[in-house]
Amino acid sequence: MEEKKMEKARCAGYLTAGIAGGIKKNGTEDLGLIFSKVPAAAAGVFTKNRVQAAPVLLDRSRIQSGRCQAIVVNSGNANCCTGEQGLRDAEEMARLTAMALDIAPELVLVASTGVIGEPLPIKKIQRAVPALVDGLQAGNFDGLARAIMTTDTVPKIVSKSGRIGGQTYTLTGTAKGAGMIRPDMATMLCFICSDVAISVDRLQKALTAATAKSFNRITIDGDTSTNDTVLIMANGLSGAAVKTEDQMKTFQATLDSVLMQLAKMLVKDGEGATKLVNIIVKGALSDEDAYRVADTVSHSNLVKTALFGEDANWGRIMAAVGRAGAAVDPDKIDIFFGKVQMVKDSAGRGKSAEAEATKILKKPEFDITIDLHVGSGQAAVLTCDFSVDYVKINADYRT
Amino acid sequence: MEEKKMEKARCAGYLTAGIAGGIKKNGTEDLGLIFSKVPAAAAGVFTKNRVQAAPVLLDRSRIQSGRCQAIVVNSGNANCCTGEQGLRDAEEMARLTAMALDIAPELVLVASTGVIGEPLPIKKIQRAVPALVDGLQAGNFDGLARAIMTTDTVPKIVSKSGRIGGQTYTLTGTAKGAGMIRPDMATMLCFICSDVAISVDRLQKALTAATAKSFNRITIDGDTSTNDTVLIMANGLSGAAVKTEDQMKTFQATLDSVLMQLAKMLVKDGEGATKLVNIIVKGALSDEDAYRVADTVSHSNLVKTALFGEDANWGRIMAAVGRAGAAVDPDKIDIFFGKVQMVKDSAGRGKSAEAEATKILKKPEFDITIDLHVGSGQAAVLTCDFSVDYVKINADYRT
Repeated sequence: MEEKKMEKARCAGYLTAGIAGGIKKNGTEDLGLIFSKVPAAAAGVFTKNRVQAAPVLLDRSRIQSGRCQAIVVNSGNANCCTGEQGLRDAEEMARLTAMALDIAPELVLVASTGVIGEPLPIKKIQRAVPALVDGLQAGNFDGLARAIMTTDTVPKIVSKSGRIGGQTYTLTGTAKGAGMIRPDMATMLCFICSDVAISVDRLQKALTAATAKSFNRITIDGDTSTNDTVLIMANGLSGAAVKTEDQMKTFQATLDSVLMQLAKMLVKDGEGATKLVNIIVKGALSDEDAYRVADTVSHSNLVKTALFGEDANWGRIMAAVGRAGAAVDPDKIDIFFGKVQMVKDSAGRGKSAEAEATKILKKPEFDITIDLHVGSGQAAVLTCDFSVDYVKINADYRT
Repeated sequence: MEEKKMEKARCAGYLTAGIAGGIKKNGTEDLGLIFSKVPAAAAGVFTKNRVQAAPVLLDRSRIQSGRCQAIVVNSGNANCCTGEQGLRDAEEMARLTAMALDIAPELVLVASTGVIGEPLPIKKIQRAVPALVDGLQAGNFDGLARAIMTTDTVPKIVSKSGRIGGQTYTLTGTAKGAGMIRPDMATMLCFICSDVAISVDRLQKALTAATAKSFNRITIDGDTSTNDTVLIMANGLSGAAVKTEDQMKTFQATLDSVLMQLAKMLVKDGEGATKLVNIIVKGALSDEDAYRVADTVSHSNLVKTALFGEDANWGRIMAAVGRAGAAVDPDKIDIFFGKVQMVKDSAGRGKSAEAEATKILKKPEFDITIDLHVGSGQAAVLTCDFSVDYVKINADYRT
């Protein structure tokens, strides 16, 4: 698996574009387009929130066909809680794009992200679609990545290649996140272009598995969005084809790697985040119990503010472990910051361990490992710290 | 039920004290004492966290007797995750107090709040106990209330009286909270002195019921502490006795009212809080479902930061409702800010409703009502906004 530089990111048979269509107040890119020269196999994973945005409802219906040739996406407006009009607007956005591309409307998927509850400015989108289609070019993932950003501070693109049957295939993906990030899933959009040939069933299976290991194991603020969407297209134009279980494993590894790297980039760019912290739990009674603990610790505002303050306040971790609802022996818990053991048998290891741990806390990326010593279950959740800027960003979001 | 002014708060047969014993770094009051002239009936409610501080373990054991004559409490150190030594220190703190008061050690309960994982400075406590006992006086609840404060900004005392059988009885309570506040329960301590005569069984039943309606329905930051303790004493010195079910109802009403008022004071004084917001959910399929929604909305960092920003961002409320795991019809949700309807049938009611709602958001106290229109279940959770100061307070707590 070889990683490509961002500026070279491309994938056989795909054209992409990103332009400013006047939807975002700040005048930056807010409309993106992915177009495959031929209809592609398609699969998707969507938010589990019961309140779902219009584009999610539309895509869930259209993806049943397993076919897609284009994805049109806007930022600045979530087209959520917009009623019947919202559904009509999402369909219209797809129809306008299909007309300009001269393909069937059913082959166009739609995604939106931004403020909830305001009507989609469909007139602005209508005016912008011709320029969006004109902007299509090979390898323009940067424009696309910028067009889906909301409070993200950097565009996020990952491209990786693999080989099947002597042929090289590529997966190039982009994602946006920043806020409303929590397992199952997040205010996140992710689009993966792939030039492999693969059945729709295998593609969906691979995407579901890769999402479970990546986007469903990250958190920024514990809120789940109404618009979360992960879409993958596979157009077969590389000549590599996934036909055997071994080839499926190869493809799965590449996809896992792309999604995991994008997930890490999302947390690193979490609203106001200054640190990327992997909360690893082991020795739990079951994997489910381990996840409960990792989830509770990684969402604790008190833990996250202490991380921001670079304070090795392990007592807050103990308190979060204790309220997670997992089986624990309250006298047998160990906690490590990086490789430094801070807590042994639920008691602190004193000032010198704390001084060592504080050095770890000053790093931009580190692990916190919690060993419960009651079994062999394990899990990990990627989280970030909770800063003054998070509050500032979210208190002023709509103004 | 008549409310007494704070400076007059007293209760027949109780002496209280609060002094500075050098445990807190800032030199303010950190040791408190409650003493009843006669042994009292006693009941308690404790944290459900599986990691429990030494004083909680000690009190849970001693309260089995149903008798208590004194409660000694310190702030500045939680005596939690301190192992066997912590348990010995909690017992020693009770023993020293009992000796100075000339009562049996088993009649002394202990509570601690503050930093987790540091040894209790028992020598400092030993030196301070004589001055603490010397400081005992009738009606000195203010000193006691100050001695249990950590990041609290104001002492919290509520005193209410009632009449049973022609006799007036009084309940005077104090509580501390500020952080790690979440249902079941919070970093909170609460002590209620009562001069009524009542059986231990009735006292425990009344305290459990009142706690469920008050402290288990508030949230500040979603973290549950290792030290939460609510204790009540009833010494019978008023002459009023609870003997019938009607008298029990009278007493329960007074206790409910005292605890609810203290709970409100805790949220109002939540770390960095500028607003007190009651999240009311109705029309749910069941009361449990209503609570799930109220709980999720009241803990959402995105909702709480929008409250701080005085932004009527109802989309974030919709997103939180949708991920709560309750049965909802995504097209039938109504949301009110105060009496202003912002959302009808899951769609916004436009700019003029938003302007009205923004006026409500500028108030220091208001309700947000969510009507799910799928049943008759209801619940409410008191919460506060989430400010820049919350992060500052918690990033720097131990420094």
